[in-house]
Amino acid sequence: MSSEESGSYVHEGEAFDRDMRYIDTRITRDARDGYGVEPGRYRLIVARACPWAHRAVISRRLLGLEDVISMGIAGPVHDWRSWSFDLDPGGRDPVLGIERLREAYFRRVPDYPRGITVPAMVDTRDGAVVTNDFQQMTLDFATEWTAFQREGAPDLYPAGRREEIDELNRWMLHHVNNGVYRTGFAGSQAEYEKAYRDLWESLDVLEERLGRSRYLMGPSITEADVRLFPTLIRFDVVYFAHFKANRQPLFTLPNLWNYTKDLFATPGFGDTVDFQQIKEHYYVVQTDVNPTRIVPLGPDLSGLLEPHDRDRFESATWGAGTAPGPVAAAERVDPAHTPWGAASL
Amino acid sequence: MSSEESGSYVHEGEAFDRDMRYIDTRITRDARDGYGVEPGRYRLIVARACPWAHRAVISRRLLGLEDVISMGIAGPVHDWRSWSFDLDPGGRDPVLGIERLREAYFRRVPDYPRGITVPAMVDTRDGAVVTNDFQQMTLDFATEWTAFQREGAPDLYPAGRREEIDELNRWMLHHVNNGVYRTGFAGSQAEYEKAYRDLWESLDVLEERLGRSRYLMGPSITEADVRLFPTLIRFDVVYFAHFKANRQPLFTLPNLWNYTKDLFATPGFGDTVDFQQIKEHYYVVQTDVNPTRIVPLGPDLSGLLEPHDRDRFESATWGAGTAPGPVAAAERVDPAHTPWGAASL
Repeated sequence: MSSEESGSYVHEGEAFDRDMRYIDTRITRDARDGYGVEPGRYRLIVARACPWAHRAVISRRLLGLEDVISMGIAGPVHDWRSWSFDLDPGGRDPVLGIERLREAYFRRVPDYPRGITVPAMVDTRDGAVVTNDFQQMTLDFATEWTAFQREGAPDLYPAGRREEIDELNRWMLHHVNNGVYRTGFAGSQAEYEKAYRDLWESLDVLEERLGRSRYLMGPSITEADVRLFPTLIRFDVVYFAHFKANRQPLFTLPNLWNYTKDLFATPGFGDTVDFQQIKEHYYVVQTDVNPTRIVPLGPDLSGLLEPHDRDRFESATWGAGTAPGPVAAAERVDPAHTPWGAASL
Repeated sequence: MSSEESGSYVHEGEAFDRDMRYIDTRITRDARDGYGVEPGRYRLIVARACPWAHRAVISRRLLGLEDVISMGIAGPVHDWRSWSFDLDPGGRDPVLGIERLREAYFRRVPDYPRGITVPAMVDTRDGAVVTNDFQQMTLDFATEWTAFQREGAPDLYPAGRREEIDELNRWMLHHVNNGVYRTGFAGSQAEYEKAYRDLWESLDVLEERLGRSRYLMGPSITEADVRLFPTLIRFDVVYFAHFKANRQPLFTLPNLWNYTKDLFATPGFGDTVDFQQIKEHYYVVQTDVNPTRIVPLGPDLSGLLEPHDRDRFESATWGAGTAPGPVAAAERVDPAHTPWGAASL
């Protein structure tokens, strides 16, 4: 997500208003929309930079769907024509054979008029986008693809807690996940201040909530954590400065920061984070916020590797399941883009 | 300082190169350049936002020259015509009667071709700028105006240490005081990275140095501290994010941060800082870095008021002198622009 055809994100005098209309076709067991769950048929297109795509990357890893749903990775930087496969040899996705993600959108809807967004599920049979509805996508990974999940896959969306999770997710989407964008893309001082205050009030709520349990919903990881982590891991790196969400760095909030460090050290979370691509995306693409396109060298991320204190809570991280195995070699993040491998700043 | 006629600070592909040519006329006891020290004759024009002017504001306070050299304060925000007196009733400096500082420059040099900078010393007899050479200005306050300094004025530029102080000041000017500008106004990624690394290497040197004595030159405040403080006090508020000097916030460097808190609590330093004007200046004027002109609400500054640990060093803050008295009512900073009076963020 987070790209607009116009290349312009800030509209003078206006609040930031995300277009939330997506292609809401679903891929389900019963193929009610014409698309059934089927191993090897779909390709998940993401960009490591994008927090909305990041959810799908994490969810796919946690559930062990890597061999069932292949993944194509668009580069962090793009022009108004949106995400392109410039990281791949020859600048083309090796499975879809396209240079730009919009080709797959146009195959589904000629002259598709809305944002060319990631994540997108593409049908490899005809190379057309099936859905870019990022909210439904991870829920379907969790509930429709169960037959193909790895052994020991956690139940990220437990039947008895769905209403609670949905409610928290709705609240987080508006106030936190998209709240940082409303802060950073505000078109007036007044809209900025409103968004900033709302964001920080909401982070304070989460800070308090995370003083009561290891994860958002209790002792186990759920879909809610999959959705919060991509925002938190980008906070000090991008949102604090670039989006002026700067009351304080996240690392000064003990519960949120220890929670972030905890998840960062958890397989399926930290091993999906590419800080260099994250920084490049925001600082190079969003020229109405950063016209120089210069990408900051900081901040120093070594603090992320320090021990966390979340073991103090009751813990059953994977519920009745187990941790995912290591990342497949082809999908490993460049170590130079991580705090483990980063050269000194 | 820090304004250019063009209104543009970043030049694509180029390093930031500050024009260091100033009107170098001096005001001295012997009037060698035609201008003698004389109470009531000169008006110091500053802007609270500007770190170079900030030195002169602090120096004048520490030395007790307030009744001898009057002070005019330009507003934080300006267009390409540079500093203007929009904070004053009717938008005119009440002594000089001008709306824009450049009028005083033009009286000295018609069509003055270089930057209209603060601090500037203006001769109230003809309303013309005498000098804007900020480096010599504070040295002259310390050494040429001795007869008019307050009783108990500290010796900021002690005769036996001038070479050492000059050497440190030269190094700091390039690597730190102007180093933040070279980082923030770099016109290419390569120039930015060079400037960033140089800046942080230099801050590490200062961090270590301040582990050995309470002030830069030992147990007493000198001209060197007057020059470093304006940069440090702007660091987390502006340079960290706006100038991408973001390896880490200053508050994570124990010696530099405790030194900053110490000076902030010292009369003549903290009582001259207007955080709101500082933020407004950088974020509104430097549109090639921040085109939206939105001024961040953060960061939370309350940490500045926490106790410092600098008493652990040998201390003779004022040398043989004493602390300056309270700020004159007319020159007091708006409490809402300080961490003492700021509304909650």
